[in-house]
Amino acid sequence: MNKKKIDYSLYLVTDRKVLRGKDFFKSIESAIKGGVTLIQLREKNLTSKEFYETSVKVREITKKYNIPLIINDRLDIALAVDADGLHIGNNDLPVEVARKLLGPDKILGYTACNLKRAKDGESKGADYLGVGSVFPTTTKDNPVRITIEELAKIKKTVNIPVVAIGGINEENVSKVIDANVDGVAVVSAILGKDDIYNASRILKDKVIKGR
Amino acid sequence: MNKKKIDYSLYLVTDRKVLRGKDFFKSIESAIKGGVTLIQLREKNLTSKEFYETSVKVREITKKYNIPLIINDRLDIALAVDADGLHIGNNDLPVEVARKLLGPDKILGYTACNLKRAKDGESKGADYLGVGSVFPTTTKDNPVRITIEELAKIKKTVNIPVVAIGGINEENVSKVIDANVDGVAVVSAILGKDDIYNASRILKDKVIKGR
Ligand code: NI
Repeated sequence: MNKKKIDYSLYLVTDRKVLRGKDFFKSIESAIKGGVTLIQLREKNLTSKEFYETSVKVREITKKYNIPLIINDRLDIALAVDADGLHIGNNDLPVEVARKLLGPDKILGYTACNLKRAKDGESKGADYLGVGSVFPTTTKDNPVRITIEELAKIKKTVNIPVVAIGGINEENVSKVIDANVDGVAVVSAILGKDDIYNASRILKDKVIKGR
Repeated sequence: MNKKKIDYSLYLVTDRKVLRGKDFFKSIESAIKGGVTLIQLREKNLTSKEFYETSVKVREITKKYNIPLIINDRLDIALAVDADGLHIGNNDLPVEVARKLLGPDKILGYTACNLKRAKDGESKGADYLGVGSVFPTTTKDNPVRITIEELAKIKKTVNIPVVAIGGINEENVSKVIDANVDGVAVVSAILGKDDIYNASRILKDKVIKGR
């Protein structure tokens, strides 16, 4: 998979907590069928063995649909399952360290909550930025908020793709698309719905039409 | 550092919980001065950033004294700080996956609680084995116990160094030395003591004299 051709338009970040009993792997597959263009596997409180085994399974699903797989935080897991890339934030490995260990061919994403960090991430080797939180969210504790104006300014300033994240759903997604971002990242707006396939399809339509 | 020349005789596994207020980095340095021959940095409940930053500091200390540094569980941290090796157990990456990602030059240790697992770890690429728990221990929840006879049998069977672990202290250390092991791993027996330097020195003496 050529990292220059990544389609960030509907970016799904996983979170088991919002599934309320739905099967994890089937939910990811339904989301992809509905139009998700990239999966970021985010796991907390798993052992390395469990994270590895989950990643192997998600890697099979993403390969089946030719969708890129990005691993959150754990560079070792990303290398172990030959994921397409790694996503890191401020509590993870430094960007320049991750860039060096990943090599030039894997995608490196970095979470930025302001323009300074966005430019810093770009200069240290990030391939794309996750920028937020643009709206209030329940899937992350006390997220730093960013305005749509700041989001638009970051998009204008940096030369790498920008994915908006944080509380995005089918009601507010058009506002972030107006900021000219390359994609929107969601968690609950897809995985928290009873009909994951349809939630994904509706969001994808709005992202495409909003451009 | 040539991995064939590793001195496993007094192997310190870190655990912040047993320090009771003592400085983490100074404690490691005192232990090395007292005779510890290898440090395994084991951290739980830290972010990747915190684990990385701690490892950078411990790496500096171990370099100063020319002592090998082994990182527990996290292969990415081991690579990021160019540690001498990685130690894994059954809740971590599979041995063969870790071996492949580490490359041939870094040390790979594996925890085994019986002969079958010991042979399995050796055949899949481990460079040494941590075998235990030989005595009751408070630093690990519900450890699987192994007898001194089983420990001695593992040592006789495998062709890689064997380090005994689990509840070893200055009172019982001679019993495991009698099993002809290459080293003893301790946590509380050094880091839990008020005088870390002396605790380390006394244990080192017993290990050397017991051979
Ligand atoms: Ni690829």
